[in-house]
Amino acid sequence: MELLNALEWRYASKKMNGQQVPEEKVERILEAIRLAPSSMGLQPYTVLVITDPEVKKQILPIAHNQQQIVDSSHLLVFAAWDKITPEHVDDYVNLTASTRNITVESLEEFKKILVSISQRPQQENHEWAARQSYIAFATAIAAAAEERVDATPMEGFNNAALDKLLGLEERGLKSITLLPLGYRDAENDWLAKFPKVRRQKENLFIIN
Amino acid sequence: MELLNALEWRYASKKMNGQQVPEEKVERILEAIRLAPSSMGLQPYTVLVITDPEVKKQILPIAHNQQQIVDSSHLLVFAAWDKITPEHVDDYVNLTASTRNITVESLEEFKKILVSISQRPQQENHEWAARQSYIAFATAIAAAAEERVDATPMEGFNNAALDKLLGLEERGLKSITLLPLGYRDAENDWLAKFPKVRRQKENLFIIN
Repeated sequence: MELLNALEWRYASKKMNGQQVPEEKVERILEAIRLAPSSMGLQPYTVLVITDPEVKKQILPIAHNQQQIVDSSHLLVFAAWDKITPEHVDDYVNLTASTRNITVESLEEFKKILVSISQRPQQENHEWAARQSYIAFATAIAAAAEERVDATPMEGFNNAALDKLLGLEERGLKSITLLPLGYRDAENDWLAKFPKVRRQKENLFIIN
Repeated sequence: MELLNALEWRYASKKMNGQQVPEEKVERILEAIRLAPSSMGLQPYTVLVITDPEVKKQILPIAHNQQQIVDSSHLLVFAAWDKITPEHVDDYVNLTASTRNITVESLEEFKKILVSISQRPQQENHEWAARQSYIAFATAIAAAAEERVDATPMEGFNNAALDKLLGLEERGLKSITLLPLGYRDAENDWLAKFPKVRRQKENLFIIN
């Protein structure tokens, strides 16, 4: 399994070297994100791909000055829908019908389930969307590792400030996680020399 | 990238055929879960691996009678810590020190951060732990696909009833997701014949 080698190789780089990630590698990482599963297949998130150095510079203080923001090649921002709207439901039902080459009418029962989900409290649906975005986020981390591209998962930043800077609220989105993509500066990265810390199998699993 | 082929191959099987997944494949999927990243590296979750047919039968009605529960080979239950305790922090600091062959005293600053995280409101920490468990969950889905093992991600079940059945509360855990592992019964699985429904790149990403 290539994934196991990739997971052994990866770590959360604390110092990147500024080298660019080739576009074909980025494309494959984005395609993995696109293919990632989500509950009901709804993909209730958008992923921003930021390469503009000026935008990265503005994000830096919003993300506790973690230098990988500016030393990365591409900065991915995973942003979840703040609510599930009737338009989201219609778009998804239409996409399902056209992909499967069936009628929208034949998806009536499926649509009813989606409508009832969309009517749950907004905060519950946003949290659900955020969890789905973690599946895409984790898939991106795995994909980057298989491409031997470093990626540093980040949760610690000022979400409201980032949403404002990137105009996410107007798009019905809230930022959840960041994933700078780039290359480790192994000599100057204090974490690069340490072995991975993971619980032993007997402490992580209950085998029944 | 092997992961892209695997993601193209996979789907959420609606009908499994009861065939057993070889232990060496299960071991590699569990190892991928063990290597999955988490915030601060804390791995605030436990994964139960259920093969006992009697236990699966008891879970079936708790999970809306989704037949993959009983037709799977191994049923994974991802359960997140209900709170972050001082013992969790001490165990993790000790594990980090022993893995890196450094003293616990040299991790004083790291420990302070973990303690301050552990002191956030319990519900906030549980939700954070649940999000981390989604990274492990997504890594398991990717790993299973690379092994050409079918896996059906499930969120829809009675969490409280499952927690009670499996004695999770006493272990400080709450069930978050289920992942039956097995093999698709392609002839009798209505979903097997449909193409994957995913938004097009231009609708999922904002490239800046």
